[in-house]
Amino acid sequence: MTNMKKTKYGFSIGLPLDFDNALELTTSALKDHGFGVLTEIDIKETLKNKLNVDFKRYVILGACNPPLAYKALSIEEEIGLLLPCNVIVYEDGENSSKVVAIDPYEAMKVVGNPDLEHIAGEARKRLRLSLLKLSTAAVETAR
Amino acid sequence: MTNMKKTKYGFSIGLPLDFDNALELTTSALKDHGFGVLTEIDIKETLKNKLNVDFKRYVILGACNPPLAYKALSIEEEIGLLLPCNVIVYEDGENSSKVVAIDPYEAMKVVGNPDLEHIAGEARKRLRLSLLKLSTAAVETAR
Repeated sequence: MTNMKKTKYGFSIGLPLDFDNALELTTSALKDHGFGVLTEIDIKETLKNKLNVDFKRYVILGACNPPLAYKALSIEEEIGLLLPCNVIVYEDGENSSKVVAIDPYEAMKVVGNPDLEHIAGEARKRLRLSLLKLSTAAVETAR
Repeated sequence: MTNMKKTKYGFSIGLPLDFDNALELTTSALKDHGFGVLTEIDIKETLKNKLNVDFKRYVILGACNPPLAYKALSIEEEIGLLLPCNVIVYEDGENSSKVVAIDPYEAMKVVGNPDLEHIAGEARKRLRLSLLKLSTAAVETAR
């Protein structure tokens, strides 16, 4: 049903959509699971402007669930160094895109604060649900 | 001479400055070491707007050195999940602020790609130099 894969530090999914549609659906799926997109970095544009190199379409979204972020900051003052949760969207061929979400549980291991574990686990769960939803929505859109 | 401390996942420095001055100097020190600030998340404002809670002044800067980012992306396609390098600035009492930069070398260990090590090491060096510069500049500004 879904092609979601676990990588060493994230969850990855392929979508049968062009980049623009994939980006729009990703933002919407994140929102449905309580994540606002606080930042959006256009890597292609940044590398073109700064280095004059051509790169594929690739965006880094900074996704934040405010209640979880607030809990995390209350437990670990400097956890802002690992916030927000990044989700990348990039083109992967014609009408094919990839969406990958950070695994906050893996990324936050470096902190070594066991009190963070359940918060990171909750964020992970929501990110995975967002990707699953995306997978279903993409099939609808691609029809 | 400097009060820079290594933490488990970052480098931290205390500045005898109010938050606004600390933020301005931090952005400038990063720029001097080749980092553009691509994103800025105002945590205090976000938590007030979304949850109606009061939090101290706290900003997450997303710092990016384009040549290093480009190298990293060429080696590890999904490294965007760990970019840009976060630097946080927060108030820490009256006329006292803290600036903490992520240690990209530690943060990128989760990737397990040895080819990334020298890039992460170079980013770490530049972030540490930015903080050292900041420490000197803060003494000048606080006079």
